[in-house]
Amino acid sequence: MRTIDWDSKKNNIIMIDQTLLPGEYKIIECDTIGSLCEAIKSLRVRGAPALGAAGGFGVALAAYRSNAPTLDVLIDEVAKAGKTIISTRPTAVNLSWGVKRVIRAIEDANNIKEVRVFSLDEAKAIADEDVEKNRELGRYGAALLDDGDTVMTHCNAGRLACVDWGTALGVIRSAREEGKDIKVISCETRPLNQGSRITAWELMEDKIPVTLITDSMSGHVMRKGMVDKVIVGADRITQDAVFNKIGTYTHSVIAKEHGIPFYIAAPVSTFDFEHYEDDIEIELRKPEELMYFGKHQIAPLDVKVYNPAFDATPMENVTAVITENGVFYPPFLIDEVRI
Amino acid sequence: MRTIDWDSKKNNIIMIDQTLLPGEYKIIECDTIGSLCEAIKSLRVRGAPALGAAGGFGVALAAYRSNAPTLDVLIDEVAKAGKTIISTRPTAVNLSWGVKRVIRAIEDANNIKEVRVFSLDEAKAIADEDVEKNRELGRYGAALLDDGDTVMTHCNAGRLACVDWGTALGVIRSAREEGKDIKVISCETRPLNQGSRITAWELMEDKIPVTLITDSMSGHVMRKGMVDKVIVGADRITQDAVFNKIGTYTHSVIAKEHGIPFYIAAPVSTFDFEHYEDDIEIELRKPEELMYFGKHQIAPLDVKVYNPAFDATPMENVTAVITENGVFYPPFLIDEVRI
Repeated sequence: MRTIDWDSKKNNIIMIDQTLLPGEYKIIECDTIGSLCEAIKSLRVRGAPALGAAGGFGVALAAYRSNAPTLDVLIDEVAKAGKTIISTRPTAVNLSWGVKRVIRAIEDANNIKEVRVFSLDEAKAIADEDVEKNRELGRYGAALLDDGDTVMTHCNAGRLACVDWGTALGVIRSAREEGKDIKVISCETRPLNQGSRITAWELMEDKIPVTLITDSMSGHVMRKGMVDKVIVGADRITQDAVFNKIGTYTHSVIAKEHGIPFYIAAPVSTFDFEHYEDDIEIELRKPEELMYFGKHQIAPLDVKVYNPAFDATPMENVTAVITENGVFYPPFLIDEVRI
Repeated sequence: MRTIDWDSKKNNIIMIDQTLLPGEYKIIECDTIGSLCEAIKSLRVRGAPALGAAGGFGVALAAYRSNAPTLDVLIDEVAKAGKTIISTRPTAVNLSWGVKRVIRAIEDANNIKEVRVFSLDEAKAIADEDVEKNRELGRYGAALLDDGDTVMTHCNAGRLACVDWGTALGVIRSAREEGKDIKVISCETRPLNQGSRITAWELMEDKIPVTLITDSMSGHVMRKGMVDKVIVGADRITQDAVFNKIGTYTHSVIAKEHGIPFYIAAPVSTFDFEHYEDDIEIELRKPEELMYFGKHQIAPLDVKVYNPAFDATPMENVTAVITENGVFYPPFLIDEVRI
């Protein structure tokens, strides 16, 4: 199933609980706004595109679950639910975008039934469009891969970060759909191990050959000729740099050293050409992420930790950015991307 | 106390149990060859120089523990114990070297008492010489560090890999002893986290400021100007390359990209100039190291894993090698090192 979807029999949101992977594959139901908010907060659903759909479906869920006697009361209730959903992860722009888009779609509703139908249709459209964009992006990216290539990736820019298909991993899926034999090397991606927990899992589910390495092995595997291309996702693309999961910059330098193409796969919505690298503050995460694995202690508890969530890769280290509108080789203008 | 030592009241070997760090600091006693072998196999003591001392003390322990009625029987028993100790980690050259050196020292013993005295004296000499070599190496290395420097390191080339003081961390200790304000950035060093478990712990014990990062952050911290020098240890130095903990090569490329000096700190015994990189087979370790942290599962259990124990850094990425005989800038001849 998709990362997140609508159960049209029960009129509930269903999703893959990503916190249990890879130990357990479990579909959970969110039948209230409270349970949806808990799922978002706990990262049971994560990844910018997937959160857009979660926000959209959340508004529809509010409309279906309400016992409001009149249209006005329902509209009020839904708006309130939307705010509650957005507040779970206030910096996730896609979550807020999904909520707002669906709330706009119910402005023209004439009765309670129409609120439900319009909101669900719009939420489904968000999800479907996300899959379609990734499919387009995948097709453009696949043309860059040769039969027999081994692609190294970092973190999870896969179907579980999106509604389906994925960005970096979507390119690999598209290339394999075209009959190319593509293998993957997945960096485990410390400190939260999205590479070993999620990327390795979803590739194995699709029977795509994947080999897991620690992040620091990227130099060794590239020097040994084991990597043909690197493809990673992006959290934000400014005029001069690509912000992505911490470790991306290190891989970009190693790729440059060995003449290996370094691609970013990201939808056009990721571009933020109004800003430069220096405008963006890098989120610092909790030191505990480097002190524990589950309950297993791996560092002195009072050690000083530096734990930035992402780093900036200067655009000159990027071979090209793969989007749903085509492949763009730096330097490029935003008007070329936003066609 | 030292990493490993002799308890002259009980005539036992005592050591810091490194498998319990950083959660627990515990001194354990080995009063039989069996318990010593278990400690070596389980990595309660690890690190090439420390294993040399473990081998030496092990032979003395065999001499002290024996109830042999005659000199000949004792010599036989001790030789047998030596072989048992060596077999615990057959590829650890220092362990074998320590055992053999002490066995040679008892060849001239005329009675049982002399076997005990000669073996213990030689084992203590191995331990003392190791500390003295590291002190010399530290003094040479300290001259390369400036007051206020932040040094990045990888894995544990510290006092817990040696009898005391350490190689890479010995340089930092020596520089601080000279009054220089040196700070350390320690890479956690996946998959076994010697950087977070051991290096962070021993530096904090000595009140040396240390900041813990994940391995993949090295690019980010060097790009942000947070690192003045890199110093790591070595497992083996061939004519053309330095073999060290996996990840070392990646750091060397990043250091080169940013013009940051990249130093190796290693005793002369680490040099193997009879070989080139291509002659050396890289040990592949168990996939489970990337699948679990304690009992916490972090990857699909049937995932393919590539887990080399170390990598090779070409000599052209090395600024200099710091030894107890001085600092050597590549290219250099082995005759210059072995003075």
